[in-house]
Amino acid sequence: MSEDKAFSRAEYEAGDAGSAPLRYRLATPASRATHAIESTPVSPLLKEIRHNPLLWLLAFVPAVLAGEKLEPEAHTLLFVLSVLAIVPLAALLSHATESVAAKTGDAVGGLLNATLGNLTELVIAVTALRAGQTMLVKASIAGAIVTNTLFMLGASFLLGGLEHHVQEYNRVSARLQAGLLFLATIALLVPSAVSQADFVEGAVFTRRLSLGLAVLLVAAYGLSMLYTLKTHRELFASAEHAEPGEAPWPIGLAVATLAGVTVLVALVSEVFVESVQKAAETFGMTPAFVGFIVVALVGGAAEMASAFSGARKDHLDLSVGIALGSASQIALFVAPVLVLLSYVIGPAPMDLQFWPGAVVMILIAALTASLVTNSGRSTWFVGVLVLMVYLIFAMTLYLLPPRAH
Amino acid sequence: MSEDKAFSRAEYEAGDAGSAPLRYRLATPASRATHAIESTPVSPLLKEIRHNPLLWLLAFVPAVLAGEKLEPEAHTLLFVLSVLAIVPLAALLSHATESVAAKTGDAVGGLLNATLGNLTELVIAVTALRAGQTMLVKASIAGAIVTNTLFMLGASFLLGGLEHHVQEYNRVSARLQAGLLFLATIALLVPSAVSQADFVEGAVFTRRLSLGLAVLLVAAYGLSMLYTLKTHRELFASAEHAEPGEAPWPIGLAVATLAGVTVLVALVSEVFVESVQKAAETFGMTPAFVGFIVVALVGGAAEMASAFSGARKDHLDLSVGIALGSASQIALFVAPVLVLLSYVIGPAPMDLQFWPGAVVMILIAALTASLVTNSGRSTWFVGVLVLMVYLIFAMTLYLLPPRAH
Amino acid sequence: MSEDKAFSRAEYEAGDAGSAPLRYRLATPASRATHAIESTPVSPLLKEIRHNPLLWLLAFVPAVLAGEKLEPEAHTLLFVLSVLAIVPLAALLSHATESVAAKTGDAVGGLLNATLGNLTELVIAVTALRAGQTMLVKASIAGAIVTNTLFMLGASFLLGGLEHHVQEYNRVSARLQAGLLFLATIALLVPSAVSQADFVEGAVFTRRLSLGLAVLLVAAYGLSMLYTLKTHRELFASAEHAEPGEAPWPIGLAVATLAGVTVLVALVSEVFVESVQKAAETFGMTPAFVGFIVVALVGGAAEMASAFSGARKDHLDLSVGIALGSASQIALFVAPVLVLLSYVIGPAPMDLQFWPGAVVMILIAALTASLVTNSGRSTWFVGVLVLMVYLIFAMTLYLLPPRAH
Repeated sequence: MSEDKAFSRAEYEAGDAGSAPLRYRLATPASRATHAIESTPVSPLLKEIRHNPLLWLLAFVPAVLAGEKLEPEAHTLLFVLSVLAIVPLAALLSHATESVAAKTGDAVGGLLNATLGNLTELVIAVTALRAGQTMLVKASIAGAIVTNTLFMLGASFLLGGLEHHVQEYNRVSARLQAGLLFLATIALLVPSAVSQADFVEGAVFTRRLSLGLAVLLVAAYGLSMLYTLKTHRELFASAEHAEPGEAPWPIGLAVATLAGVTVLVALVSEVFVESVQKAAETFGMTPAFVGFIVVALVGGAAEMASAFSGARKDHLDLSVGIALGSASQIALFVAPVLVLLSYVIGPAPMDLQFWPGAVVMILIAALTASLVTNSGRSTWFVGVLVLMVYLIFAMTLYLLPPRAH
Repeated sequence: MSEDKAFSRAEYEAGDAGSAPLRYRLATPASRATHAIESTPVSPLLKEIRHNPLLWLLAFVPAVLAGEKLEPEAHTLLFVLSVLAIVPLAALLSHATESVAAKTGDAVGGLLNATLGNLTELVIAVTALRAGQTMLVKASIAGAIVTNTLFMLGASFLLGGLEHHVQEYNRVSARLQAGLLFLATIALLVPSAVSQADFVEGAVFTRRLSLGLAVLLVAAYGLSMLYTLKTHRELFASAEHAEPGEAPWPIGLAVATLAGVTVLVALVSEVFVESVQKAAETFGMTPAFVGFIVVALVGGAAEMASAFSGARKDHLDLSVGIALGSASQIALFVAPVLVLLSYVIGPAPMDLQFWPGAVVMILIAALTASLVTNSGRSTWFVGVLVLMVYLIFAMTLYLLPPRAH
Repeated sequence: MSEDKAFSRAEYEAGDAGSAPLRYRLATPASRATHAIESTPVSPLLKEIRHNPLLWLLAFVPAVLAGEKLEPEAHTLLFVLSVLAIVPLAALLSHATESVAAKTGDAVGGLLNATLGNLTELVIAVTALRAGQTMLVKASIAGAIVTNTLFMLGASFLLGGLEHHVQEYNRVSARLQAGLLFLATIALLVPSAVSQADFVEGAVFTRRLSLGLAVLLVAAYGLSMLYTLKTHRELFASAEHAEPGEAPWPIGLAVATLAGVTVLVALVSEVFVESVQKAAETFGMTPAFVGFIVVALVGGAAEMASAFSGARKDHLDLSVGIALGSASQIALFVAPVLVLLSYVIGPAPMDLQFWPGAVVMILIAALTASLVTNSGRSTWFVGVLVLMVYLIFAMTLYLLPPRAH
C-alpha cells in the first residue's frame, strides 16, 4: 500500500506509467515486454523518444543512409531527408550534453554545455571542409551567427512577450555576451574590410592574418571561460542553469549517446553536403541562402526549442544566454577551430575573409544585439523588431540572384 | 453685472477681446464688423491668423499661385515664393491635426497625430513622384530623416538646455523610437549596401526587394501603433500629449481646414517641384543639398515650432517624441507608401536604393540618436554635439560638387 | 629638537633625505656639494630625475643629438636613440604641466592639462608636417586616437582589474568623452567616406571641406571646455584631479621646464622624422605600422604611466578620463590645428582625408569605447576584450604588405 502512495498524484496525472507501481505495469504481455526493455539502461532514451514527437523523425536517419546507397543521384530527395534526419539527432545531442553537464557540476558542466552546444554545426562544417566547400562553410558560420543573434533572440522575445507583459533578464550576462560577440565580429571582419578597402590582393597576407586571429580568438574564448566560470562566476551563475524539468540521463547513457549520435550526424551531414548544391538549384535557392538560412536553422533546432520554452516560462535569462552564447561561441571558437583544422584536413587552408554582404549582415546583427539587450527588459514588440531585421536579411538573400564566387 | 465678473482677470490681462462681454465688443462700427465675422464658425481660424505672425506668410499663397500663371519662367522667384507659402500652410495643418486628435481621444488621436504629422512632406513627395523626379523624392526622404533626427533633436536639446540646467525625458519612449528608426534605417539601406557590396546590377532584384521591404515596414509600423496605443500604452501615454496651451478648434472647422489646406499644399508644391532645379543652380546649390536640407526644413517647420516650444517649457518628452517619431514614421510609413504608390502613379516604379552618401548619413543619424537618447538626460552641450553632426553633413553637401545621377 | 620631530615618520620611512634636518645632510663633502645644488631652484627637478628610473633615459637626449651630427646615415640607430630620448622628455613635460595646473587652480588648470597633455604628439606632428610627410602625420593622428581609446583604456581596465574585483567610474564623464570622440570621428571620416562613396575626385572640395571641419571641431572643443569647466563643472569635477602623490614643482621651474623640454622634443623629433622611413624598412615594418603603433606609444608613454598607476590605485576615473580625453582632444584639437597650420608651414596644405583602413579602425575604436564605458563598471575581462580589439588592429597592420600611398 505504501508503494501505491509513492505513486504521487503528479505522476499519475502526468500519465507517466513508467513510475507506476510494478503490479500495474505488468498487467498485460505487451506491457511486460515493454517493461523488459525499460528495465535496461537505455530506458530513459527510449522513454524520451516515445514522448517527444520530434524524435519520431529519427526514422529518417536510416532512411537517408539507405537512400544514399540506393539512389545517389536523387539529390533533392536526399537533401530533404538529411535535413529531417539531422533535427532529431541535434535534439538528442542536446539532452545528452545537459545530462553530462548536470553530473559534472556547474564549472565543467557550463564549459561542456557551451562547447558541445554547437556540435551539430561543427560536424556539418567539418564535413563540408573536408569536401573543400569553403563557401558553404563560411555561409554556415555567418548564418549561424546571424540566426542565433537575430532569429533565436527575436523569436524568444516575441514568444515570451505574448505570455508575459514585460520580462526582465540578467543585463550583466547579456552585456558580456554581446561584447564577446562584438569582439569576435570585428575579428572576423577586419581582414575582409582592410583587404577590400585597401584593394590588397595578398592571399598570403589574408592567410597569415586569419591564422593569427584564430589563435587570438581561441585565447579570448578560453579567458572568457575563466571569467564566467571562475573569477566572476557570481555575476553569471543563474543564467547557466539547465531547465530542471527534464530528468537527466544516467552518465553512461549520456556519454554513449553523445558518441553514437555524433557518428550518425557525421554520416548524415556527408549526404547533406553532397546534395545541397543541386537541391538548392532545384528549389530556386542560392547556395548563400541555403548556407545562411537552412543550415543555421537546421543545426540550431534543438537549441531553439530550449530557448523558446524558457522564454514562455519567463526564464528569459536562459533564452538570451543560449542565443548570444551560441552565437559568440561560433564566432570565438567554431570559426577559429575550423581555420586551424583546415590546415590538416581538406584540400586547402581556409581563411577568415567573408564576402561583403556577410560582413554587413554580421555587423548589423552584433550591433542590434548590443542595442537591444542593453536595457535588460523585453516586450513582444522588441521581438518583432529583431525578427524584422532577420526577415530583411532572409528576404534579401532569397531574392539575390546567384553569382559565381 | 455677473456677466462682467465672468470676464476673468486672466482673460482681461491676456487682452483676449473675443471673450469680453458683448457690450464692450460692440462699441465701435469696426468692432461690430469684426464681431460679425468672429461669430462665424471660422472665427478661431481667423483669430489664430491674427495672433500668429507666422501665418501672415499666408499672403504668399495667392502670390505664388498667381505668379505661376503670370511668370512661369521666373523660377528663382517662384521657388522662394513657394517656400514662403508652404511654411504657414504646414502650421495650419499642424493645428488642425491636433484639434481633430483632441476630439477623438488618445488612441485614434495619437494615430492621427503620428500619421498626419508628415502630411506636408508626403504631399511634396507625391508631387515630385508624379513628375518622375525620383532623385528629389529620395533626397527628401533621406533629408527628412536626418533633419528630424539631428537638427530637430539637437536644437531642442540646445534651446531647452539654455533655459534649464539639466532636463530629463522618458527613456523608454525614446529608446523605442530610436529602435524603430534603427530598424527602418537597416531596411532602407540593406538593398543599397548588398547591391553595391556584391556589385549586383539587377534592377529587377532591387525592385522586388524594395517592394517586399515596403510591405514589411508598413507592417512594422502598424504593429508599433498596436504596441504604443493598445498593449503597452502605459509606457508611452505621457509622451503623446499635445500642448494644452493652444485651444483646439471645433471639429468641423478642423476637418475643413485639413481638406482645404491639403489642396493648397498640393498646388503650391507643384510650383515648388517645377522650379527647384533651376533655382538651385542659380543659388549654387546642388539638387542633393536642396532636397536634403531645404525641403526637409520647409516641410518640418511647423513640427519644429512645437518641438522647440516644448523644450523651452521643460517638456522635453514632447520634443524627443516629435523628432524621433517623425523620423521613424517617414522611414517606416512615408517611404514605403511612396514605393507602393509609385507603381500606380508616375512614369516608373521607385525603389529603395539610395546613393552611398545618403546611406552613410542616415546610418550615422540613427546611431547618434540611439547613443544620445540612451541616458534619458540632456544638457545644452548634448544639443551642441548633435547639431555639430548635422552641420558636418550640411557643410559636406553644400561643398560637394554636383554629379550626374 | 623640535626640528627633529618635524622630520615626520612618513618622510623617514620614504627615505626622502632631502627633507632631513640640515645637520644630517651636511655630514660629508659629497653631501655638502649635493646640498649646494639642491638648494638651487632646480632641486625638485634633479630630485625627480634621481628617483625616477625612467628619467635616466635622458642620457639619450645628448646621445641622439650628437649622433645626428656625427653619423647622419645611421638611420636605424638614430631611430632607436630618438625613441628612447622622447620618452623621458614626455614624462618631464607631463609633470611640468601638472605643476602649472596645480598653481593656476581648477579651471585654467584643467584647460592646461587637457591642452598640453598631447604636446609631445603635437611637436612630432608639426615636425613631420614641415618636412611634408603628411602620410606620417595622418598615421600618427589616427594611431594616437586608436591607441588611447583602445590600448590605454584596455590596459587600465586590465591592470586595475587584476588588483580589484570590480571597479566603478564616473559614467557621466565617460559618456561625454565618448560622445565627443564619436563626433570628432564622424568629422574626420565624413570627407573620406563621402569622397570614396561617391567617387568624387575633387581635391579642392576635400580641402575646403577639411578647412570648414577643422574650424567646426575647434569650436566644439572650445564649447566643451566651457561645458566641463564652467557651466556643468559639478558633473566632472572629481575626474580632473591630478594624482596628489607627486609634489608639484615651483611655478618658475615648471614654466622653464615646459619651455626648455619643448625645444628639446622639437630637436629630437626632427631626427626621429628623418630616420623613421629607412629604419622602418630595416625592421620590416610598414610606415603605417610605425606611425600608427610606434609613434602613438612613444608619444603617449607618460600619460599611460599616469593612467595605469591610477587604475591600480582604484582611481579608474583618472584612467578613463586620460584615455578618452586625450583621444578626443587629438581628434578635436590637434588634428584641426594641424590642418590650419599646414596652410602656413610645410610645402602643401593638409586635408582630413584618411585612407579607408584608418577610417574603419577609428570608427571601431570610437564605437568600442562607447559600448564599453556605457555601464560605468569594469572588470579585468573588459580590459582583455578591449586590448584584443587593439591587438587585432596591430596584427593586421603588421602583416599588411606595404603599398604606395
